[in-house]
Amino acid sequence: MNVQVPNLNHPELQDQIVGRLERVEELLFQQVQGSGELVDPLTKHLVSAGGKRMRPLLVMICGLLGETPDEEALIRAAASVELTHLATLYHDDVMDSAPQRRGVPSAQIEWGNNRAILAGDVLFARASRLTAQLGTEAVDYHAKTFERLCLGQLNETFGPAEGQDKVEFYLQVLADKTGSLVASAAYFGALYSGSSEEIQSAVSTYAERVGVAFQIADDILDLVSPGEVSGKTPGTDLREGVDTLPVLLLRARAARGEGDNEDARILDALAEDLSSDVALSRVVEMLVNNRVIDETRKLARKAIDHALEALEPLPQSEAKDMLVQFAELTIDRAV
Amino acid sequence: MNVQVPNLNHPELQDQIVGRLERVEELLFQQVQGSGELVDPLTKHLVSAGGKRMRPLLVMICGLLGETPDEEALIRAAASVELTHLATLYHDDVMDSAPQRRGVPSAQIEWGNNRAILAGDVLFARASRLTAQLGTEAVDYHAKTFERLCLGQLNETFGPAEGQDKVEFYLQVLADKTGSLVASAAYFGALYSGSSEEIQSAVSTYAERVGVAFQIADDILDLVSPGEVSGKTPGTDLREGVDTLPVLLLRARAARGEGDNEDARILDALAEDLSSDVALSRVVEMLVNNRVIDETRKLARKAIDHALEALEPLPQSEAKDMLVQFAELTIDRAV
Repeated sequence: MNVQVPNLNHPELQDQIVGRLERVEELLFQQVQGSGELVDPLTKHLVSAGGKRMRPLLVMICGLLGETPDEEALIRAAASVELTHLATLYHDDVMDSAPQRRGVPSAQIEWGNNRAILAGDVLFARASRLTAQLGTEAVDYHAKTFERLCLGQLNETFGPAEGQDKVEFYLQVLADKTGSLVASAAYFGALYSGSSEEIQSAVSTYAERVGVAFQIADDILDLVSPGEVSGKTPGTDLREGVDTLPVLLLRARAARGEGDNEDARILDALAEDLSSDVALSRVVEMLVNNRVIDETRKLARKAIDHALEALEPLPQSEAKDMLVQFAELTIDRAV
Repeated sequence: MNVQVPNLNHPELQDQIVGRLERVEELLFQQVQGSGELVDPLTKHLVSAGGKRMRPLLVMICGLLGETPDEEALIRAAASVELTHLATLYHDDVMDSAPQRRGVPSAQIEWGNNRAILAGDVLFARASRLTAQLGTEAVDYHAKTFERLCLGQLNETFGPAEGQDKVEFYLQVLADKTGSLVASAAYFGALYSGSSEEIQSAVSTYAERVGVAFQIADDILDLVSPGEVSGKTPGTDLREGVDTLPVLLLRARAARGEGDNEDARILDALAEDLSSDVALSRVVEMLVNNRVIDETRKLARKAIDHALEALEPLPQSEAKDMLVQFAELTIDRAV
């Protein structure tokens, strides 16, 4: 199995991590097969399409923190977290009617909505079976994480309550729907390396904040990344009427009566039909040149700084270095 | 909590069962709340709509088989199995675009597809958390059951392999998608009452077959039940192009070259547009008067006889009596 891991500047540990991640890949592929030649291509679809495997990598970095690593448990936990992530992607792509995922047609484009929903369910069942091998606490933690993740997505569909701060609500949704599963990766890594509860808790907090930063960076990339890199047209979220963080910040400023003429022009443009590429690229360009992009970058930076603060209880170590770098890499692409 | 249980002719045990089922209802309602006033009505929707609670009842009947019942475990297992059933109903109704469920609008009609998918996911997560309280074996059994159930539904969408017997394939799908979860109810009941592995296995086999019989009876009810009882127009499955067992038997007879003119007329009518009520009721009437209905009834009867055979290892007892009655009640409404 070929595993691509960003350089984390500690070659020896890096080799150990790569070795463990190769075994995670093997286990992942094993978990999405065995149900016949019609079903297997569907359940294998997203695993085969690749992906950054950011969550398994985080399990393995945190797996270096304790003195008594249980390699089998680390590998199972990493595969379970990634399978859970993939299960949610099957359902997300149905819910968003997404045409593509990881550069290949999404499952519901190739197999239809019903099979994509069922494939997500099957992957979640298999993730549960893997965690069952780790013990009841792992199962409860895993199920609790999945529950929080789904509730985050549900809350997102309902929107903030009357009078609730929209930016705060948005950041909470990111913590629930993305941060929670990233946090579970760090938690399992620390747990199965034999770290103390204090360390388990510290890296969970760190990872939840890194997950939030990652999503904020995604909001920036939706606007600034060239289509060839992201595989998406810049501004796709805007076209779908999703209020990403830059737009929320703009609206918040307008609501406070602090918006200028340029801000008003952007908000007007957002309310128009953005189905033509000309209209979309015009509003994207205005947004990219607006100060909200810098504000958004600052919020990503703040989330990362906040994540690094959570690492304070960890004594200096190469693994801690790697966690710092992992956090920086998360937003590097966008800031 | 008001629990309706069919009379199983052993008043004292019946009272005990009703008492336990009342606690299952309390636990069920507790499990689908606590996420705020916007999310709760969605996650409570199907629990509140009622239902026969056939699976919890089966847990409780089998919970009388052993000498050392663990009442808390029986209640948790029953709630977990029912929550899992409800989770699949949320997804089923999205997949079937079903307008109604249990006499109320289905969740995706009231909340849309995306929220209905997420609600199903949340319920499955909560079922997993409940089983985590029962131990890793329960979690693995539960996840394996859910996996089999989803794979059964997936196989159904792909249809039989080239040359595979279509009736056999259909019965296998019923065993996977319905029988598996009913079997898990019986298994957990036997397990948490302290029954031997032989008894656990016997009642699981029994229950899987009862689940199949239940679904065959459903295929008959789709044709013969008046709309006021089932809440559906007779022939709804036919209209949606679903080949239920009577239709499969008809096609099989035609394929063997044993069909008569009347059979051919029905198959021709099935290939026509059935969107008008006149066309639909015409084909329903022809089917109801065809000998395939008797053949279908015989297959339901055979599944029940087969289920009762599986009970042979059980010594005579009031609980065993109840299992016999439970099986008969399953098809009573249709044969």
